[in-house]
Amino acid sequence: MDKINLKRRDFFKGTGALLLGVAAGKILPVSDAQAKGVNVEKWPWPYEKLDPVETAEIAYKQWYKWFCGASVVHSVFYQLRKKIGEPYTLFPVEAFIFAEGGVAGWGTICGSLLGANVVTNVIIGPRTGGSHLGALMGSEIMEWYCEANMPVYVPKKPKVPVDKIPHTVSNSPLCHVSVGKWMKKANKPLGSPERRDRCARVTASVAYHLVELLNKWKDGKYETEGEFPSGDYSIPAQHNCEECHGDNVPEPPGSED
Amino acid sequence: MDKINLKRRDFFKGTGALLLGVAAGKILPVSDAQAKGVNVEKWPWPYEKLDPVETAEIAYKQWYKWFCGASVVHSVFYQLRKKIGEPYTLFPVEAFIFAEGGVAGWGTICGSLLGANVVTNVIIGPRTGGSHLGALMGSEIMEWYCEANMPVYVPKKPKVPVDKIPHTVSNSPLCHVSVGKWMKKANKPLGSPERRDRCARVTASVAYHLVELLNKWKDGKYETEGEFPSGDYSIPAQHNCEECHGDNVPEPPGSED
Repeated sequence: MDKINLKRRDFFKGTGALLLGVAAGKILPVSDAQAKGVNVEKWPWPYEKLDPVETAEIAYKQWYKWFCGASVVHSVFYQLRKKIGEPYTLFPVEAFIFAEGGVAGWGTICGSLLGANVVTNVIIGPRTGGSHLGALMGSEIMEWYCEANMPVYVPKKPKVPVDKIPHTVSNSPLCHVSVGKWMKKANKPLGSPERRDRCARVTASVAYHLVELLNKWKDGKYETEGEFPSGDYSIPAQHNCEECHGDNVPEPPGSED
Repeated sequence: MDKINLKRRDFFKGTGALLLGVAAGKILPVSDAQAKGVNVEKWPWPYEKLDPVETAEIAYKQWYKWFCGASVVHSVFYQLRKKIGEPYTLFPVEAFIFAEGGVAGWGTICGSLLGANVVTNVIIGPRTGGSHLGALMGSEIMEWYCEANMPVYVPKKPKVPVDKIPHTVSNSPLCHVSVGKWMKKANKPLGSPERRDRCARVTASVAYHLVELLNKWKDGKYETEGEFPSGDYSIPAQHNCEECHGDNVPEPPGSED
């Protein structure tokens, strides 16, 4: 935890240019996604404030059909399809079921975080769309996730009694690490009702926080605490270096510059 | 590498039920994504065979604007927008720039793999759409990526001479591990032209292989070698356990069953 640096970055620290060490180049807005008057690559997408509790409840219930990633996207887009319609009705939410188990069971990024990044970046847009806040809000949610005593959200009608679900701090955005630490503490297998409800609640927790931040952004009050870790480490990285590397954390070439 | 088990799974071994240990439950097809006659949640999406070389060249060039993830999606969808139109024109490809640097610089899943999974699952559809092949094809590409001597594809007009880009085997789908092993061997920093061109070529390599598999699928000749690792390990995981855990690879609760 001592490697986590939470200080707020100035805005331009978080540019794609910095992210991968690119000198500022010509990036021209290009869109060939204009069909029948609908341009889905015009940002931001219209947004109306949502209730975090209602969103979390939708995510929790949907987890039992679609698991983590698509359920987070669904929890937001399902409501916006009803409130706004297009372009949300044109986005194939269900296809994102693949995020389950850290992308098809590979344990990479927690699916709920992948879903949250899809939502922030589809609504607020990419850096080429005029704002870095979509990516930075996604990154802020990843940082928050790493530090949270998960699961945070308690559903109104839990499928498993609350006291059967212990809490753990993942210190990582990876499904494998997050689920693994919880399984170790709970001593419960992957297929257990407790592990399943834990992940349903993590999904709900992420959906809740996602909408909290989107609502702030809608009110013009969102000041991001997100940053791109690659800027700190000279390599794309999470913050828990020692957890895999032990005492031998490599120095990336060029990091001494 | 000795933990990799490449034998083909029977089809139902790769179900979402197995993936997260769920007993077969009621999964009903639900779609509220029908607007003005366009149902983007009806699968598979129409597909026409693409030229792998042309696709890889598009991905390679686009990397210098959008980096890895969105460039893979663009390399396929840009062509299908021209050949087919909707629903490809309705998908906000550009929003997926966030996949860069393993999702906003966090080094999780390699962005090109995230992009490939988006493509296979949006085109072929999720398990709830009637086929597991979208997720399994995405997983097969991840497995292939882990074992490939990257970058595989050599662009027609490389921005950096071919002999300046060494090759490495990541043995992992994670950006941090893939880029880190390459940076160590090349002794080049993240912002170097060589590292940048290496990742542009990895992106092109993934786009090339992605279209190879999609073309086979279109011809009805795709027999998946994909599987969900969570089924083998009793936890969502990649195959290189010892690389982080050393000799102390934990036994997940329930894995002895």
